[in-house]
Amino acid sequence: MLERIDHVGIACRDLAATISFYESVFDLTVTSREVNGEQGVREAMLRVSGAPGGASWIQLLEPLGPDTPVGRFLARRGEGVHHIGYGVADITAALEAIGARGVRLLDKRPRHGSMGASIAFLHPADVGGVLTELVQAPGPPAPPP
Amino acid sequence: MLERIDHVGIACRDLAATISFYESVFDLTVTSREVNGEQGVREAMLRVSGAPGGASWIQLLEPLGPDTPVGRFLARRGEGVHHIGYGVADITAALEAIGARGVRLLDKRPRHGSMGASIAFLHPADVGGVLTELVQAPGPPAPPP
Repeated sequence: MLERIDHVGIACRDLAATISFYESVFDLTVTSREVNGEQGVREAMLRVSGAPGGASWIQLLEPLGPDTPVGRFLARRGEGVHHIGYGVADITAALEAIGARGVRLLDKRPRHGSMGASIAFLHPADVGGVLTELVQAPGPPAPPP
Repeated sequence: MLERIDHVGIACRDLAATISFYESVFDLTVTSREVNGEQGVREAMLRVSGAPGGASWIQLLEPLGPDTPVGRFLARRGEGVHHIGYGVADITAALEAIGARGVRLLDKRPRHGSMGASIAFLHPADVGGVLTELVQAPGPPAPPP
C-alpha cells in the first residue's frame, strides 16, 4: 500500500533561510515553491531522489501566521519534523482500507497537495504520534470517453 | 550529496505492538530486527520501497531503558518521529564537507548502524531541529590487496 517515502515535511520559522541552509549544506535544489492558503503554509519542495518509482522530497513549511496548524506546531514543539508523506498508487482505496482498519482520517476525501498531488492526512494519535500523509502523484489525464 | 531518504526513525514505547500496527494497517513487512546496545535501542526495519538507487525504510525504535537517547526523547516529546536518515555514497567525504560548512557532527567518524550500514549523526540544533543521520549502505567487500 505504501510505495515510497514521498516526502518529509519540516516546519521552519524562516523559509528563505532554511532553503538556503539545505541548498548550501546538503547541495539540494528547490524544485517547486507554493503558497497553500487552505493549509496556511508557504512551502518549498527540494528533491532528494528521482528514482523510477517516484521521487522523494524534503518539504519545508513556514506558517502564514501563528493561528495555523504549522504555526501552532512551532509554538508547541519548535522547529523540526512535522509529518511524513507516503506515496500510494490509489489514495481513495488506501483511505478506505486504512479507515476500515480503525485509523481516524483527518481528510475523508483527498484534497489538493503540493505539485498537483492528491493528499490526505491520518490522525497522528492513531499512528503512534506521527502525523501521516498519503500522497498520490498526479497521473496522466483521463482518456477521452 | 544526499541521494535518498534512507529511513525515518520513529520512537515508540512498545516495539512489538508498533510493528503489528504498521504491518496490519499499512501492509509493510519487517526485514530486519536488531538490538543495538551502543545506541540503547531495540529496533525493526520495515521496507517501504526498493528502488534501484537504494531502498527506503521505516525504522521503529524502542529504548532499552529510560536513560538512553530514545528513552529521554520519549519522556520529553512522547512517541513520534525521532530522526531522518539520508543515504550518501561516501559518508566520510559527506561528513567532512558538512562539518566544513559549520554543522556540528555528533559522530566525527562513521560508526555501525542498522543492517551493516555506516552511519553518523549531525547535531539537530544546527539542522533546524531535525536530528539528521547520514547512511552509507554496506558495499561489496574490498578487493584483495
